[in-house]
Amino acid sequence: MNLLLLSNSSSDAGYLTHALPWISDLVAGLPEGPALFLPYAGVTRSWDDYADLVAGALAPAGIAVQSLHREADAAAAVARAALFIVGGGNTFQLLAQVRQLGLLTQIARRVRSGQARYLGWSAGANLACPTIRTTNDMPIVDPGGLDALNLVPFQINAHYTEAHPPGHRGETRRQRLAEFCRVDPVTPVVGLPEGTGLHVLDTRVAVLGGQPAVLLQGDAPLRELTADTLEVQA
Amino acid sequence: MNLLLLSNSSSDAGYLTHALPWISDLVAGLPEGPALFLPYAGVTRSWDDYADLVAGALAPAGIAVQSLHREADAAAAVARAALFIVGGGNTFQLLAQVRQLGLLTQIARRVRSGQARYLGWSAGANLACPTIRTTNDMPIVDPGGLDALNLVPFQINAHYTEAHPPGHRGETRRQRLAEFCRVDPVTPVVGLPEGTGLHVLDTRVAVLGGQPAVLLQGDAPLRELTADTLEVQA
Repeated sequence: MNLLLLSNSSSDAGYLTHALPWISDLVAGLPEGPALFLPYAGVTRSWDDYADLVAGALAPAGIAVQSLHREADAAAAVARAALFIVGGGNTFQLLAQVRQLGLLTQIARRVRSGQARYLGWSAGANLACPTIRTTNDMPIVDPGGLDALNLVPFQINAHYTEAHPPGHRGETRRQRLAEFCRVDPVTPVVGLPEGTGLHVLDTRVAVLGGQPAVLLQGDAPLRELTADTLEVQA
Repeated sequence: MNLLLLSNSSSDAGYLTHALPWISDLVAGLPEGPALFLPYAGVTRSWDDYADLVAGALAPAGIAVQSLHREADAAAAVARAALFIVGGGNTFQLLAQVRQLGLLTQIARRVRSGQARYLGWSAGANLACPTIRTTNDMPIVDPGGLDALNLVPFQINAHYTEAHPPGHRGETRRQRLAEFCRVDPVTPVVGLPEGTGLHVLDTRVAVLGGQPAVLLQGDAPLRELTADTLEVQA
């Protein structure tokens, strides 16, 4: 298994620019087969526009992007893919669409078997987790259940921040994640600050981006995850 | 129908203190019957603690709070209630619990018929809406569907803010709500800033709190809702 899971796509440097070196590493020695983009998290941006944006951003890494929404036979396209690229946007819509297309099991099987690699950011990183229960997104559509690809044995919280706008009386991110850790004290949650990502190679996880991620689990105090490689239970 | 739907509970003045005059108006001439608190949105706070907190906060308004989680026969308690008090916390857990108890229809029927009034804040305000699709909360548990009490013909977004922490690359609140308005261009969304609320008397809606709420619907430009009373389609 070979996954690159990013907190975010855009930075002052441009769209996916900060992640291009990591993406180049991910696709080095990629098996034969198309790089298939899943644009379904896009809501206010059309899937065509989204696919064009990502194709342009990944061209410098030598990746020729095909968008799944343009394929007449989605299952056949998934069966050929050597790389899944799952973009951010709304996690609920992303999961609803992939579930409706009946592709969750097939995508997971190809990634687990090593036939395809996986690049996801924001909602696309959430989709790789056991469930989408740690997304920050609004439940604008019913995803038909919260279970997702289950490629990694932990949850990701993208755009992780400890910021708290002055005067805001709603929950902070930490409070929201504490709620998750209360109802599910077992599953670890990795909070990925802007600009960070995880490289998952089978059971080894490396934190990328020059600043620590955070690990939350049950009642345990928050732990900083540095760039050192961690071993996780598959 | 008589509902008071608040953005938030706590302010510098204390817990529910800012809303006490509105709550006193809501319960004036209340029919005979208990004031029933639903603590189910509470996750990191125990339901006992939550019920005690709310009982203390509402005592100055002459309301003797009973908590539904202490009732052996929940359906019988709901059938007697003259006031439902639905607290904030996690909207997904709130909806999951009320659905699991089989009480959604019964509560909605009592409020619609005028046999009971409704006080809700944050998650409790979301529950009164057609669905919980405009909650800010994390989907920590599967609510078994997003449809809710459907007491008002619009969605509420509590803790509405246009703040954007510097460096944050995730969606702003406006972007999240724009996604909702894209997938559902028909249902209006009322954004309630901290300190505001809505008083719904049958088809008349008044904005409370000395600052405007905002109305979002489909592609239409954001509209400020002032304290004037509005008529809404039931």
